[in-house]
Amino acid sequence: MTTRKDFGQHYLVDFLRCDPETLRSVGPTRNIFLRAAREAKATVVAEDFYQFEPEGVSGVLLIAESHLSVHTWPEDGFAAVDIFTCGEEMDAEVAIAVLTAAFRAEETVVSVHTRGQLGERESEEPDVG
Amino acid sequence: MTTRKDFGQHYLVDFLRCDPETLRSVGPTRNIFLRAAREAKATVVAEDFYQFEPEGVSGVLLIAESHLSVHTWPEDGFAAVDIFTCGEEMDAEVAIAVLTAAFRAEETVVSVHTRGQLGERESEEPDVG
Repeated sequence: MTTRKDFGQHYLVDFLRCDPETLRSVGPTRNIFLRAAREAKATVVAEDFYQFEPEGVSGVLLIAESHLSVHTWPEDGFAAVDIFTCGEEMDAEVAIAVLTAAFRAEETVVSVHTRGQLGERESEEPDVG
Repeated sequence: MTTRKDFGQHYLVDFLRCDPETLRSVGPTRNIFLRAAREAKATVVAEDFYQFEPEGVSGVLLIAESHLSVHTWPEDGFAAVDIFTCGEEMDAEVAIAVLTAAFRAEETVVSVHTRGQLGERESEEPDVG
């Protein structure tokens, strides 16, 4: 088995039972998201946010360190975020803490996946022999 | 344990030992990515692509069904893609097949994660008792 460099950490973060008011429209969602990126020391290079009707937001920040995305279901109090970060400067955990507080999530479920690791395929099912 | 609706499937896809020429600059990477989205029947609502110097690309498509992103390391022949899709129309597997062929990847490693499943936390480590 050869070892190889890894290409960063990919966080999939589910925010459950959020305050729906923060998730309905681009304005508050974008503000929260930009603040999370800033406090995590991400360098934003491009952004796009999209308003669904009657409510709900998709948004992405391209950052020098890779990206952050958010998709909201205000009717379910749910937001799905992913944070892909390469390098040492940015702290994704800070972004997750900011988002948890700002969305007023009652539960935050995080899974972390190391990208580009040949031969270390992640499994969805526990590999119990 | 309550069951709840799920909020879509999130594919993390590592493309290994790609043709570096397809990964160096926005032009070819964007063309390939838009074609993959189109063939997968995604509805693109916004896009951003960013050129790294001297080479390498970050890009994202916001789609009605959520998003696709790509980050390339041409010097390593590596591309990290994620595809988050909600709904029945779009077929992420088609996008993955298009990208594998167009990047000339020798190996494609896919992991799939269902978002928003309360109480079904994914684990990185096999849970061997």
